[in-house]
Amino acid sequence: MRAPARSVELTQVTEWENGSVLSLQDSLAAEEPLEIRLGEVPLTVTMRTPGHDVELAAGFLLTEGIIESADQIVALRAAASQNGSKSNVVEVELTRTSFEPADLQRNFFAASSCGICGKASIEAIRVRGLRQPNSDFRFDPDVLCHLPDTLRAEQAVFGQTGGLHAAALFDKSGQLLQLREDIGRHNAVDKVVGWALLQGMVPLAHHVLMVSGRGGFEIVQKALSAGTPILASISAPSSLAVKLARELGLTLVGFLRGRRFVVYSGGFRCLPPSP
Amino acid sequence: MRAPARSVELTQVTEWENGSVLSLQDSLAAEEPLEIRLGEVPLTVTMRTPGHDVELAAGFLLTEGIIESADQIVALRAAASQNGSKSNVVEVELTRTSFEPADLQRNFFAASSCGICGKASIEAIRVRGLRQPNSDFRFDPDVLCHLPDTLRAEQAVFGQTGGLHAAALFDKSGQLLQLREDIGRHNAVDKVVGWALLQGMVPLAHHVLMVSGRGGFEIVQKALSAGTPILASISAPSSLAVKLARELGLTLVGFLRGRRFVVYSGGFRCLPPSP
Repeated sequence: MRAPARSVELTQVTEWENGSVLSLQDSLAAEEPLEIRLGEVPLTVTMRTPGHDVELAAGFLLTEGIIESADQIVALRAAASQNGSKSNVVEVELTRTSFEPADLQRNFFAASSCGICGKASIEAIRVRGLRQPNSDFRFDPDVLCHLPDTLRAEQAVFGQTGGLHAAALFDKSGQLLQLREDIGRHNAVDKVVGWALLQGMVPLAHHVLMVSGRGGFEIVQKALSAGTPILASISAPSSLAVKLARELGLTLVGFLRGRRFVVYSGGFRCLPPSP
Repeated sequence: MRAPARSVELTQVTEWENGSVLSLQDSLAAEEPLEIRLGEVPLTVTMRTPGHDVELAAGFLLTEGIIESADQIVALRAAASQNGSKSNVVEVELTRTSFEPADLQRNFFAASSCGICGKASIEAIRVRGLRQPNSDFRFDPDVLCHLPDTLRAEQAVFGQTGGLHAAALFDKSGQLLQLREDIGRHNAVDKVVGWALLQGMVPLAHHVLMVSGRGGFEIVQKALSAGTPILASISAPSSLAVKLARELGLTLVGFLRGRRFVVYSGGFRCLPPSP
């Protein structure tokens, strides 16, 4: 897979190795701020890797509970800058019945002030459009073990820069549907989920979401907003990620490496039935 | 080093390996929200690993440009919960001359709206208390190569959970002064910087800050707030991290592994002079 044009920047660096000094050209993962604007109101500014900005915005709207379905989006476009090139702004227009800018601060404040103990934060977040994942979905553990190889093989920017997180969406047979990379793990997830939302595929009731790094609380929340029944990661989840996954019945898999993985929640979807 | 009591949580998990299923107890990196409150006004809620919360708050105040020195702090305490145990709230009191809560939104908004192109965001951030790092500081490249081993050896929670970021502060001879771990890389940096601030050591003019993961824009900004002349990381920096480091003259080292590293900015501090 080729990396999008703006996601890599070249620069001159100096390498030191065992006392020898060498000047060479290196590829950096691009990081630039993106503003997502609802009418005149800035919803958020996120530091992201340029590319797939409209998908990122769509995913952000869904996984932050601002919308629940694609038909609430009237318009979604990358604003042109003064010289006509792409700017770092995505403009959003939503249906009248959806989210009002005035709700934003209330929402964020609610999430914040309820978030002081784990239990309370889980309750506060549950009202923000999290979905109960499909309990009929099953996934072959042998197929699960192949997903990391597929993900790594498709990580174009990582190969060039060594500096990016990836999120990938697989169908029920383990086929890769989409992969996105970003300097921020949460942005990579938003890009993949946003892609699926704009394809009309949400809720992702028969899919596996895989992330290259850890499965933290925020990633679990995003998986639940998209309705994915299985979230797999190569590394460790946090305590609060496990709590939220168990509370809502998400299958949470960690340390997926080689022929081994650890199931933290919802094992019935990917483990053989207990004898 | 022993991990602080609340930074690890035990839970029952299921391991799948090559078709065999095993139930076992696993250690999770704890993740809980922390609210930092200035009087009655919540400054921020961050998802962090419990432990060293007061240092985290002190570091946050400094690296977000809310204060510039420790003497602006009148009081800083972990609020007790109703049952007398530690809560997830740190209360801050600042001198009259310092930051006003009303400035907060203005500040954040300024940072946001100026942050739409890399150049503008760098200018916007420079006014928020970033320091020009000490240009007389030099560091031996051979000593630099030993820092990752020291860091990894001291990562207590990572050893148990595999799920934490670390930030460490070294003196000019490569001696480890302090190491902190957290589920969030920025929190680990804030904990170490906050520790130094409360010790009266800021600006850290003769020190090296090292992080276990990537050196992104936010981490460069935090290093500059603390005045550290060298920021080293095991992995890749982003494009905007390199831009900011070059603009302010920070030595930025990446891919510090074995007997090799890459210098992205300020090579004069850790490379032999050009012949």
